[in-house]
Amino acid sequence: MYTHPFDQSEYRQRIKNTKTRMSERGVEILLCTHPANMCYLTGYDGWSFYVHQLVLVALDDEDPHWIGRGIDANAAKVTTFLTDDHIHPYADDYVQSTSKHPMDFVADLIKQKGWERRAVGVEMDSFYFTAACFASLQGNLPNARFEDTTTLVNWVRNIKTEQEIAYMTQAARIVENMMRVGIENVRPGVRQCDAAAEIYRAMVAGTPEFGGDYSAICPMLPTGIGTSTPHLTWTDTPFVAGEGTILEIAGVSHRYHCPMARTVHLGKPPKKITDTAEVVVEGLNNALDAVKPGVTCESVERSWRETIEKHGIVKDSRIGYSTGLNYPPDWGESTLSLRPGDKTELEPNMTLHMIPGVWLDDWGIEISECFRITEKGAETFCNFPRKLFVKD
Amino acid sequence: MYTHPFDQSEYRQRIKNTKTRMSERGVEILLCTHPANMCYLTGYDGWSFYVHQLVLVALDDEDPHWIGRGIDANAAKVTTFLTDDHIHPYADDYVQSTSKHPMDFVADLIKQKGWERRAVGVEMDSFYFTAACFASLQGNLPNARFEDTTTLVNWVRNIKTEQEIAYMTQAARIVENMMRVGIENVRPGVRQCDAAAEIYRAMVAGTPEFGGDYSAICPMLPTGIGTSTPHLTWTDTPFVAGEGTILEIAGVSHRYHCPMARTVHLGKPPKKITDTAEVVVEGLNNALDAVKPGVTCESVERSWRETIEKHGIVKDSRIGYSTGLNYPPDWGESTLSLRPGDKTELEPNMTLHMIPGVWLDDWGIEISECFRITEKGAETFCNFPRKLFVKD
Repeated sequence: MYTHPFDQSEYRQRIKNTKTRMSERGVEILLCTHPANMCYLTGYDGWSFYVHQLVLVALDDEDPHWIGRGIDANAAKVTTFLTDDHIHPYADDYVQSTSKHPMDFVADLIKQKGWERRAVGVEMDSFYFTAACFASLQGNLPNARFEDTTTLVNWVRNIKTEQEIAYMTQAARIVENMMRVGIENVRPGVRQCDAAAEIYRAMVAGTPEFGGDYSAICPMLPTGIGTSTPHLTWTDTPFVAGEGTILEIAGVSHRYHCPMARTVHLGKPPKKITDTAEVVVEGLNNALDAVKPGVTCESVERSWRETIEKHGIVKDSRIGYSTGLNYPPDWGESTLSLRPGDKTELEPNMTLHMIPGVWLDDWGIEISECFRITEKGAETFCNFPRKLFVKD
Repeated sequence: MYTHPFDQSEYRQRIKNTKTRMSERGVEILLCTHPANMCYLTGYDGWSFYVHQLVLVALDDEDPHWIGRGIDANAAKVTTFLTDDHIHPYADDYVQSTSKHPMDFVADLIKQKGWERRAVGVEMDSFYFTAACFASLQGNLPNARFEDTTTLVNWVRNIKTEQEIAYMTQAARIVENMMRVGIENVRPGVRQCDAAAEIYRAMVAGTPEFGGDYSAICPMLPTGIGTSTPHLTWTDTPFVAGEGTILEIAGVSHRYHCPMARTVHLGKPPKKITDTAEVVVEGLNNALDAVKPGVTCESVERSWRETIEKHGIVKDSRIGYSTGLNYPPDWGESTLSLRPGDKTELEPNMTLHMIPGVWLDDWGIEISECFRITEKGAETFCNFPRKLFVKD
């Protein structure tokens, strides 16, 4: 038996909120290709996003429609509350065909429903909505008016409910375990892949009370010169005494993420590394202290920047982003960014990952916190020492 | 120290083969956004594909160019053979911006090089080449002629070298371990997440001789009614006596995959399940026997179909596809499909995953083999019992 992670009423509320935004934008039909948006609106959950699929929301139809590959239709029946007349499987010969495209099928459905002159929202810059998807829709629906709704549902996802927060809290317990296991296994002579394997096991097994899920970004553990950049994964060579390793990982529960980054140094680190780690922690603390409802994203980043500038450190990349429900390739939500120019005001139950990484020519430091916004300020999900870990 | 998985001469040969295909297609500039194509041509390896990035191949420039986010430039320096003048980082404020797009930066580079009137190949239906990517290029390069080169490099990847086969052979040893561990842990009362955790550990740790890598599709283990569809992942509820579980997993070495699927039944299965499993194995055997250089993809599928039709089983989805180097979301290569209409002739050192899954209303069976084509026929990578596993 499959147990839905949310009550149907929660999905109903999400659909209602989405329709409100559609109305505000003058969009009558919304095509959601982002797997997190599909899951958010219907509960659909499966690793089928390597073929084209989407959830269609029409203002004048109560329920969304799922459209996807034939063999995945039973996944929609198992994981969503949709009735069969709202599940539209396409034939298998649409898959990776050179003569027809799954979006031709979507356009046919839109015409069949009489919606071909409507204002259609498409997620123009969402991975999984390829240039060919849009070309098919434009060709097949010449009388439709297309609107760019890349982050429309992402913004609905921005404020979390108590149940969503509860899953992120579970994810926090999991990532604390993962980080403990990771730091323990980063030792001279241990192969990087063996440390990564233990981190994965902790991620998926979860705790005795609740299981874990796969993360939208794999555990990253750049080491040595690799710490000069954030997104390298492991190899099968061993960790080396005298080198640093960054662990950027996330615990996941029901597709809700709680990311965390820490840096481990094997042996006594050079002064530049201990000094920089202290500045990063000071900047992180100051930026977390600046978080309050009504404060803008850019002003939170300013607290960080003013701290590090005093110490002569420059960082030109953003220090954080909203996070929560997600699928590969990203656990970020593409809405809030903690950086200059983002004037979004923080609100209670937004959830962010603040990750002020510093990457230099041949080394780097990452120490991060995932937090929710409460009336009082930032409430971190994890309870884990906020420091550079030095192992002798 | 980072060890490149291939000699530089192998990358040179790949670039040369790609340029030959570009010339044949009349394409002067090729923009590769598919992470596997980027890695294939330059060695670039990192989980940075959640932001826009690409490898540009120009007919009149010996080396490709890497273009990506600033913080990932050091990953290009660590993992590729490219010199700094072929690594082009864009500023962080291009990331998820609502006012500018990373492809604007790419277009600027193309103009700076004087290539703005060239024939530009773009991977129109490749995930990671979004509709917004194409809109930016079209807007910024009105005098360029765009060609759809979605699978141009994928087709170059189709015939594997001995070193690539060697990595797939390592991946085979890993997936055999994973499957043993998986079948052992699918037991009544064991939580699905705990079985998945052990499978993950075996995938990433690899063997004492070589480590494992993350797979482009997560381990899938639909169970019970979930076996009616292939792409469901685990939950934290326990396996139940009397139910079936499908394990579709892949071992990975240096991003080269060897997938395998098997089905486990807890307790004596109903006759329809044992009968169907026998037919699936018979059909798989017959289709593998039909594999030879010069034979078409569709004729291999025909051997399968003729076998199952005799037993009254109908399957309307493809039974296999090419596989090898890949990144999420797919370990398939989007070139060969074993299905009616695919008239591609098989050649030595093509590598495929033959997965003739049967999914019915509330149950299903998957038993698969990954194989290379030799002069003699199909040579399977794995040595693992080709049957339904029944556990009492």
